[in-house]
Amino acid sequence: MNFLEERIAKDGIVKEGNVLKVDGFLNHQMDIELFNSMGEEFKKRFAGKPINKILTIEASGIGIACVAAIHFGVPVVFAKKSKSINIEGDVYIAEVESFTHKCKNQVIVSKKFIGKDDHVLIIDDFLANGCALQGLISIVNQAGGTVEGIGIAVEKGFQVGGHLIRNLGYHLESLAIVDAMDASTGKITFREQ
Amino acid sequence: MNFLEERIAKDGIVKEGNVLKVDGFLNHQMDIELFNSMGEEFKKRFAGKPINKILTIEASGIGIACVAAIHFGVPVVFAKKSKSINIEGDVYIAEVESFTHKCKNQVIVSKKFIGKDDHVLIIDDFLANGCALQGLISIVNQAGGTVEGIGIAVEKGFQVGGHLIRNLGYHLESLAIVDAMDASTGKITFREQ
Repeated sequence: MNFLEERIAKDGIVKEGNVLKVDGFLNHQMDIELFNSMGEEFKKRFAGKPINKILTIEASGIGIACVAAIHFGVPVVFAKKSKSINIEGDVYIAEVESFTHKCKNQVIVSKKFIGKDDHVLIIDDFLANGCALQGLISIVNQAGGTVEGIGIAVEKGFQVGGHLIRNLGYHLESLAIVDAMDASTGKITFREQ
Repeated sequence: MNFLEERIAKDGIVKEGNVLKVDGFLNHQMDIELFNSMGEEFKKRFAGKPINKILTIEASGIGIACVAAIHFGVPVVFAKKSKSINIEGDVYIAEVESFTHKCKNQVIVSKKFIGKDDHVLIIDDFLANGCALQGLISIVNQAGGTVEGIGIAVEKGFQVGGHLIRNLGYHLESLAIVDAMDASTGKITFREQ
């Protein structure tokens, strides 16, 4: 097991309904030393790619993306889930369905911040059915930019998202892939990588 | 002018209605080198305080808080603006009115992540009327923890929030305090600190 799998095995909690709670270190309370190790690991896995921007989505992707960005030396753009009066002018829009919140959202990115010359690394905390990720890919494609890679903290390997994204030919790296979880025993099975 | 004031003067845009757009480097696209300098500066301004946790609020506080946390060597907790099915059990709740979105939100933090032994630095991107900040202070107080300080990127000095929070005796440090803005000329006047 790598450092993230070990941490999930130690502190992650499996709940009924295929819910994996990692809110003690990943997406409510955030362990910044862990995020720093994740950033280092993403930098290794996407070495040599001409990445000049990281794209993520609010809220829980932002912390991971910002700490990773220190290792890449690039700015971060985060997609917003609802229209703010402070965003004006032209925006890219994608529809995103949330597994956690059981609702559909529009996510938007100002056209000022992604363009055809951008080589984008997409980062998010979770990959399950892949809806959020498809929205982010759609936004980069609308902008005429290049998706250089996708870095995920925790992939639920038993849901379709990862399979679908890899089939589309994207370079997807998930630091931990959960292939099975058992809420009755708390056991988490990780995919060998 | 310090580094943040210089950046706001260069890239900030003043709009009618006392709106200061800093979305190119602070709260939509995020300049991580700038965030790193802000984290260093917060560490200087709160030197000697026994801070063991940073508390912020989604979404645009998270990036600043996470990069600052590297300098403090502490975890970050972010308050969430709506109830997620992944948050369960006991939570601290505060009412927060948003200037930007013109609506009221409940913000919540799981009781697991702030307690009476916590010495908390609150970090956020903007301080205007102070509603978000009051919510975060309320949550630390509900937990029986100690607010060791409050670090803000941009304070609108012509709104009441900063005055109110300082009157309450909190150690509030704003890296840039805007005392006046003129949408017709674009001129921004910073308070001497």
